[in-house]
Amino acid sequence: MKESKEGITVKKEENMPEWYEQAVQKAELADFAPISGFMVIKPRGYAIWENIQNYFNKRIKFYGVKNTYFPLLIPESYFKREAEHAKGFEPELAWVQKDEGERLAIRPTSETIIHDFFSKWIRSYRDLPLRINQWCNILRWEVKQTKLFLRSREFLWQEGHCAYETEEECEKEVLLILEEYRKLAEEILAIPVLVGEKTEKERFAGAKRTYTIEALMPDGKALQLGTSHNLGQGFSKVFNVKFLGKDEKEHLVWLSSWGFSTRLIGAIVMAHGDNKGLVLPPAVSPLQITIIPILTKKDKEKVLKKCQEIKEALEKNFTVEIDSREDYSPGWKFNEQELYGTPLRIELGPKDLEKDQVVLVRRDLNTKKIIKTYQLKKEVEALLDTIQKSLYVNAKRFLDSSIVEVKAWEEFLKTVKDKKITLASFCGEVECEDYIKSETDGATSRCIKEVTSGKCIKCNNKAKYKVYFSKSY
Amino acid sequence: MKESKEGITVKKEENMPEWYEQAVQKAELADFAPISGFMVIKPRGYAIWENIQNYFNKRIKFYGVKNTYFPLLIPESYFKREAEHAKGFEPELAWVQKDEGERLAIRPTSETIIHDFFSKWIRSYRDLPLRINQWCNILRWEVKQTKLFLRSREFLWQEGHCAYETEEECEKEVLLILEEYRKLAEEILAIPVLVGEKTEKERFAGAKRTYTIEALMPDGKALQLGTSHNLGQGFSKVFNVKFLGKDEKEHLVWLSSWGFSTRLIGAIVMAHGDNKGLVLPPAVSPLQITIIPILTKKDKEKVLKKCQEIKEALEKNFTVEIDSREDYSPGWKFNEQELYGTPLRIELGPKDLEKDQVVLVRRDLNTKKIIKTYQLKKEVEALLDTIQKSLYVNAKRFLDSSIVEVKAWEEFLKTVKDKKITLASFCGEVECEDYIKSETDGATSRCIKEVTSGKCIKCNNKAKYKVYFSKSY
Repeated sequence: MKESKEGITVKKEENMPEWYEQAVQKAELADFAPISGFMVIKPRGYAIWENIQNYFNKRIKFYGVKNTYFPLLIPESYFKREAEHAKGFEPELAWVQKDEGERLAIRPTSETIIHDFFSKWIRSYRDLPLRINQWCNILRWEVKQTKLFLRSREFLWQEGHCAYETEEECEKEVLLILEEYRKLAEEILAIPVLVGEKTEKERFAGAKRTYTIEALMPDGKALQLGTSHNLGQGFSKVFNVKFLGKDEKEHLVWLSSWGFSTRLIGAIVMAHGDNKGLVLPPAVSPLQITIIPILTKKDKEKVLKKCQEIKEALEKNFTVEIDSREDYSPGWKFNEQELYGTPLRIELGPKDLEKDQVVLVRRDLNTKKIIKTYQLKKEVEALLDTIQKSLYVNAKRFLDSSIVEVKAWEEFLKTVKDKKITLASFCGEVECEDYIKSETDGATSRCIKEVTSGKCIKCNNKAKYKVYFSKSY
Repeated sequence: MKESKEGITVKKEENMPEWYEQAVQKAELADFAPISGFMVIKPRGYAIWENIQNYFNKRIKFYGVKNTYFPLLIPESYFKREAEHAKGFEPELAWVQKDEGERLAIRPTSETIIHDFFSKWIRSYRDLPLRINQWCNILRWEVKQTKLFLRSREFLWQEGHCAYETEEECEKEVLLILEEYRKLAEEILAIPVLVGEKTEKERFAGAKRTYTIEALMPDGKALQLGTSHNLGQGFSKVFNVKFLGKDEKEHLVWLSSWGFSTRLIGAIVMAHGDNKGLVLPPAVSPLQITIIPILTKKDKEKVLKKCQEIKEALEKNFTVEIDSREDYSPGWKFNEQELYGTPLRIELGPKDLEKDQVVLVRRDLNTKKIIKTYQLKKEVEALLDTIQKSLYVNAKRFLDSSIVEVKAWEEFLKTVKDKKITLASFCGEVECEDYIKSETDGATSRCIKEVTSGKCIKCNNKAKYKVYFSKSY
């Protein structure tokens, strides 16, 4: 019998990158592919993605967003039309050349081809608002080192694309989606986020305004989890997306786009995992409850029968499995489920059977609770809810305690070194932000907190707003 | 007010290709992309795909198949390992060349890269059976003319890949999936199919045996809807997929793969559509019931209120929408829903309100039925069920009446010309099948019906089996 399963061999607090790579691979979420920069998403990783998709599809369908599918390949001439967009994505494109025709890019994002279709589909104000989304694969040929889920050349994402009659309506829904992203992060993934506009330097290539949700990982680096862009009329101008208004005149539409990716899975791993493995929020865990029978020769049948009864009682409301394999010890199974991050474990042996009880173990705190079987359903529901909230509260405490507001450049340097999120007044200039990045060895603006009237922390010119700075993934 | 919407301008029975293209585009299922061979799947088309996905995901999860995601790009060396596979797909590959490395193919199917991972993941019999699936995009650079959904260079599909200890188990599940494909086609899409093994010539490149489900379209051409392959041990040999057996010896695994694509959507359009537009089976229609109020100034509020009540009563069990737009006439809305193929229409005007009744119109037969409001739920349920079955029965009658068994080559030529499915004894030789294809201007074997002991219809040598032949998409 297999007695104990090898866990993660480094400590999260000592070597986070190595811990992360082991956690992702030993929990069987993903693997490195043979081509540098690519990954394989394994069943446990993909199941988290499906849970995120199921949640988010319901949300956007509620707002009238419809799913679609646009081509993988985009003609080179499309990228060239919007100059900033082209400049932003050009270095990361992978090309396919077939026949005599122009080069075709594997999509790094689909604004260009989608707006081309918008120009065909939109005729009058009756066709607006037009709200579509697609779940698809994306290719960006980055040169940095691959990190599973966090940075890879190919990833999966959703990209929403909407067209509106008025600027107000467009901006309103850009913020509505941003709020949906915040809810997804905080309520489903249990990851608290900073929410705000990006500075000019960090804006999406071709956008008028970019909004973001930013999480803080335990190693003090920020992670951008989703962005919602107000594209203004830049793209509608070059792709000729016009509509006949109620005033019987032609107008350009206002466009938005918004996306999040499989990077979210990496965020969950980093935010909540511990030295035993993943700790998954119940709302996205592929499995919420594992039942592990303690088997003896004498009582095997009885114990398994009871486990089956418990499973049947719970499976209407929760995802639950029994691990009745006989060539693995209960200890091995505990280790495995700890690696997987399954929120709740139910242990049941002959003694428990006698007393009509089960042992409930929380993955996040490793606390045990013995309860009577008749209490199980209620108790499980309450515990899963508590775990979901508790993961959020802990992460929120960490985020809140990591934000330091500074008034002087020396302090700024120190807080960056201390791996804090630094809140400082900033002029908003791209050049000044470049200086800050180079002098801090990589700290970038994450998002704008609020408008201010002070002086810029770096150049001392008039500040525009207070901005969160930190190193990031 | 818009009075009547333009429908399809050609007759299905007179010009099927043109009818099809108009039907797909006017029902807003898909559009041609700017690059030849590519398409855009619009919300109404994608919603059908989502309904198919939801159904099929439940089925395969029941059998323990888990969803995953493998890379879009596959190194050239991978394809070369399995010689027949390489030869089969080489002409259709699109390549990406980055850096100094080897060429990378955009996946035309993923056996090679998946089997490479199987060789890493599978160690002992404990890891078997291993059953995975992915929903993804696929690229095959065909040169034939694009037909939306039916033939395009990029399409969406599911590809299942499984590994087993024994040949028996492998073959058993290859047939199990084939049976699931049959159920999907017949029970969900309402399309009857011929089910059987492919001849050697039509086998998947690298497979030991290929099984197929084949539908007959109203123009007399067959359409392959899904295939399930027993790959034997060819791939496991070249990708070194071995396991330590219960006998403590090393063995090669037995592999299978199986797939269907967005082509199914094209099949639904062709099989059931009529001169007014699509006729969608209730099980996959994005919308099952449309409520169209007949509005007069006086009774507008009352009628809309009643429509809302009806919607609320039905929406727990069915997908239902009210079309209360005021700048379109009821006639325009009828035309639109006929194009869309929505199975049931509910009309409700002031007179109906007075009599506490509604008018129910079936899309497939265009028959009207007046019923009391209290009967609605029961009636709708029964009617949707009847429509689903009736579409199948009609298509089945057509299929059955289109099969002709022949004994002589002259008869064979005639039945092919008459656009029938020709059942004939066949020797099974690739060369003989090539002759049949060229002499009939394109008739190919669709699948094997049964073993026989007669003589081959073409070469007069000993026949192996009776085979269905016809032209095909």
